[in-house]
Amino acid sequence: MNRKQNIPFLTTRSLHPENQESPIHFLNEWLTSIKYFYRRNHFSYPLLSQRHFWIHIDGMVHKPRFFHYDEILSMPSKSIIVPLECAGNQRANFKPKVYGEQWEEGAISQGKWTGVPLRDILEKVGFSQNAQEIVFVGADSGKKPGVHENIPYTRSLPLEKAMHPDTLIAFQYNDKPINYKHGYPFRLIVPNWYAMASVKWLNTIKVIDYSYKGPFQTDDYVYYPYKDNDKDKFPVTTLNVNSIIQQPLHLSILNTGVHEINGMAWSGRGRIKELQVSFDKGKSWKNATVHQLSNQDYAWSRWSYIWKVEEKGEYTIYARAKDSSGQIQPHTPFWNRKGYGYNAVARITVKVE
Amino acid sequence: MNRKQNIPFLTTRSLHPENQESPIHFLNEWLTSIKYFYRRNHFSYPLLSQRHFWIHIDGMVHKPRFFHYDEILSMPSKSIIVPLECAGNQRANFKPKVYGEQWEEGAISQGKWTGVPLRDILEKVGFSQNAQEIVFVGADSGKKPGVHENIPYTRSLPLEKAMHPDTLIAFQYNDKPINYKHGYPFRLIVPNWYAMASVKWLNTIKVIDYSYKGPFQTDDYVYYPYKDNDKDKFPVTTLNVNSIIQQPLHLSILNTGVHEINGMAWSGRGRIKELQVSFDKGKSWKNATVHQLSNQDYAWSRWSYIWKVEEKGEYTIYARAKDSSGQIQPHTPFWNRKGYGYNAVARITVKVE
Repeated sequence: MNRKQNIPFLTTRSLHPENQESPIHFLNEWLTSIKYFYRRNHFSYPLLSQRHFWIHIDGMVHKPRFFHYDEILSMPSKSIIVPLECAGNQRANFKPKVYGEQWEEGAISQGKWTGVPLRDILEKVGFSQNAQEIVFVGADSGKKPGVHENIPYTRSLPLEKAMHPDTLIAFQYNDKPINYKHGYPFRLIVPNWYAMASVKWLNTIKVIDYSYKGPFQTDDYVYYPYKDNDKDKFPVTTLNVNSIIQQPLHLSILNTGVHEINGMAWSGRGRIKELQVSFDKGKSWKNATVHQLSNQDYAWSRWSYIWKVEEKGEYTIYARAKDSSGQIQPHTPFWNRKGYGYNAVARITVKVE
Repeated sequence: MNRKQNIPFLTTRSLHPENQESPIHFLNEWLTSIKYFYRRNHFSYPLLSQRHFWIHIDGMVHKPRFFHYDEILSMPSKSIIVPLECAGNQRANFKPKVYGEQWEEGAISQGKWTGVPLRDILEKVGFSQNAQEIVFVGADSGKKPGVHENIPYTRSLPLEKAMHPDTLIAFQYNDKPINYKHGYPFRLIVPNWYAMASVKWLNTIKVIDYSYKGPFQTDDYVYYPYKDNDKDKFPVTTLNVNSIIQQPLHLSILNTGVHEINGMAWSGRGRIKELQVSFDKGKSWKNATVHQLSNQDYAWSRWSYIWKVEEKGEYTIYARAKDSSGQIQPHTPFWNRKGYGYNAVARITVKVE
């Protein structure tokens, strides 16, 4: 009997709705295989029918109409490599603890999304000069605590972000039709924003001249800095500069010798410029080697550092990324009541025996 | 397109060797399906050959010999439902943190093991009156930190435990040949002991008149009460009385109304007699309903408690089991350097909105 390759699995956080984490510490691909793409749902999966192959565009447009799947596939498309990260990624790291799905570090996955720029579709229908936001409705719906009727998953984008040439109506992931669980037939892809903006099973697009107030942007996906009141709240949008240490694992036991410390780093505010590691809890920092895909502005970077350790003992290792906009991971995370946007310095402790 | 059932996966802790946790919070079967049985290995999987279908018995026996797979299958067999729990299960709960695989609550699985009592085999070969221990050698081998050559996984049992009528040389799990990753063709099954005693890919059995000192019982699988010295160490053997809360999940958000709190409880020292829950951090306790399989002395119990909650807020829920030998889960775990036998009162906090 032959040895088989040992393979990782998604880590289950909940089943109804399905929320499963990517086994990020055991993956080193640039493009996450669809089977390892994290799954994050607010509702049960939608029952799809023929009408989901038509995207309806209405609101303040000159010619409201439907676009069929075939028509969208016949339009000029582009492909971009984009990491999608759940705003709640690393929520489990907050202290004090916050309620909600206890995502560790795997609510992030990256792949090649292919689609038609949303602006091309909007230009086909034309829209009012008073347009302020574009609203996106997914085919998934259900009950949300505090809301009485069934509601579909709905989010808006400011016009400027919607018109960015890389905001796509995607129909392929890694050169295949998007997997059912990840939004087939259409998923909005909004580079640089947390993934709640990248609406799955996209079905309706509406142009509006006001500020949309749906619960997925006025209740959830809002930073609440205080435990007991909503003062100073502001919406979750752009990915914070962030990194993780993939290997070695936290609290693992290593031999003396040479080890590669490695991980990933990413930001919604620019390219990763620097990844530093510290062995003295941040007093001094050393540069790691940063590996990047050329011509991919959004893709995560991978980094590595060769560590030679001869003395037995316990070691704490920090890693922090800096991006081209000058943002750097903070020592202390920005605690917020719903646990979004964790991006404090990555930390592990290992024992060398 | 139809909705598919959402299914959980094993949680990956490491791949080389393979260590994966059962998604215990999402399972409610009495018999763990083999695909959800946790995987715990010290080495890579063994390459099996014809010789692994022969168990060799030697040492202080009257007639050293080999038993072929077919011969063992032709002997009278018995089936018992046994939970196997890794001694490091719940290691991640220790504070201060301990090094090693960070098992949460899923390094435990239960099923129906069918095999021949080891005593029947030992009686066939006869053994010396001076016999003290029986040594079991698995087909898996490799390097262990601190040991120079490759060593096979090897453990011993005291004669009395080895001769217990329910200590089995098992060849079936849930009525099928044991899965390759779980010990095919033979696994020793030692009810009531932590699972390091239930040697997989069992290949050699040796009767000895001394105390075996292999590293898997003198270095690993030893309780070390102190961080910096080995004083007062003692071996890991019997399962501590223990329980978990499976649902609701720690740090989850619930609606007001009626919820079932449920989980499992087990002990290597007797049957579960009582499962109590507390909503005031252990000041007062209420009895949960305990469900048990009849005629199964080793099987875990399942428990449930109907909780009606009308007031919004944060709630801490404790659960503790008591067994028929009078053992009860402690408030504070017995911290030990290698992180074995965690069995403190189970605790979750939930938010009701």
